[in-house]
Amino acid sequence: MKELKVTPIKNGTVIDHIQSGMALKVLKILGIGEDIQSTVSVVIHVPSAHENWKDIVKVEDRELSPREVDKIALIAPDATINIIRNFSVAEKYKVQIPALARGILKCANPSCISNSNEPLETEFLIKSKSPLRLRCKYCERELEDVASSLL
Amino acid sequence: MKELKVTPIKNGTVIDHIQSGMALKVLKILGIGEDIQSTVSVVIHVPSAHENWKDIVKVEDRELSPREVDKIALIAPDATINIIRNFSVAEKYKVQIPALARGILKCANPSCISNSNEPLETEFLIKSKSPLRLRCKYCERELEDVASSLL
Repeated sequence: MKELKVTPIKNGTVIDHIQSGMALKVLKILGIGEDIQSTVSVVIHVPSAHENWKDIVKVEDRELSPREVDKIALIAPDATINIIRNFSVAEKYKVQIPALARGILKCANPSCISNSNEPLETEFLIKSKSPLRLRCKYCERELEDVASSLL
Repeated sequence: MKELKVTPIKNGTVIDHIQSGMALKVLKILGIGEDIQSTVSVVIHVPSAHENWKDIVKVEDRELSPREVDKIALIAPDATINIIRNFSVAEKYKVQIPALARGILKCANPSCISNSNEPLETEFLIKSKSPLRLRCKYCERELEDVASSLL
């Protein structure tokens, strides 16, 4: 067993150019855990022409929701999404950090109204994309650790 | 980008026949996280001749310690370890659940002496391999959740 055979997929999504080390966080965003029933392939820390090292995640029989893509953009802003249908790349695009992150991050301020029982979604304004800086629309607290604040 | 290219590795370890869904726990056992500096490949939920579905983990430039192998045996008792040296399988063996699990599991009993500041290692006796049942040598409490008790 010298090699892993990773064959082309019929339908699914390939997330390429993930910042090296972030693949496991992408799996978490996608809710991939013990109970997964479709094939998922991950390569971590492989050489890349673009940015030295990258990770790749390939998920069969699944296309991502806009919220999932927004979450991925926040932790891997150079990632590209390749949607595969019937063995061909049907769509390919680079993720984009949204101007407003709605319902995908939790505010770290326990007194923030978004952490009360009010029926409202969290909203963060993107103050800067590189380095990434976000501020809660409600309490104006800046978010310190994006990856661990993902909902 | 229809396929992931996964090439043979020069040196490293391929862990095959991992019970499907357990690959991410194997990565955790190996301490593979954001700071990884060698290539790691993972496939989750692929067809297997042996047991329907399996996961595979391939780690370059690394051989496993006996403790790491014992931990893997506890969560994936059918796993095989393939050690690759210079592009060839130098060793291949099936993991074995040890008769005594020493220093690899934490007792869930907060009053257990192994959770005090005494300089002793945890020890669990394997009462049954299938289903897996382990008992703390010190307080005799049975371990309920092996995966979350791994040190």
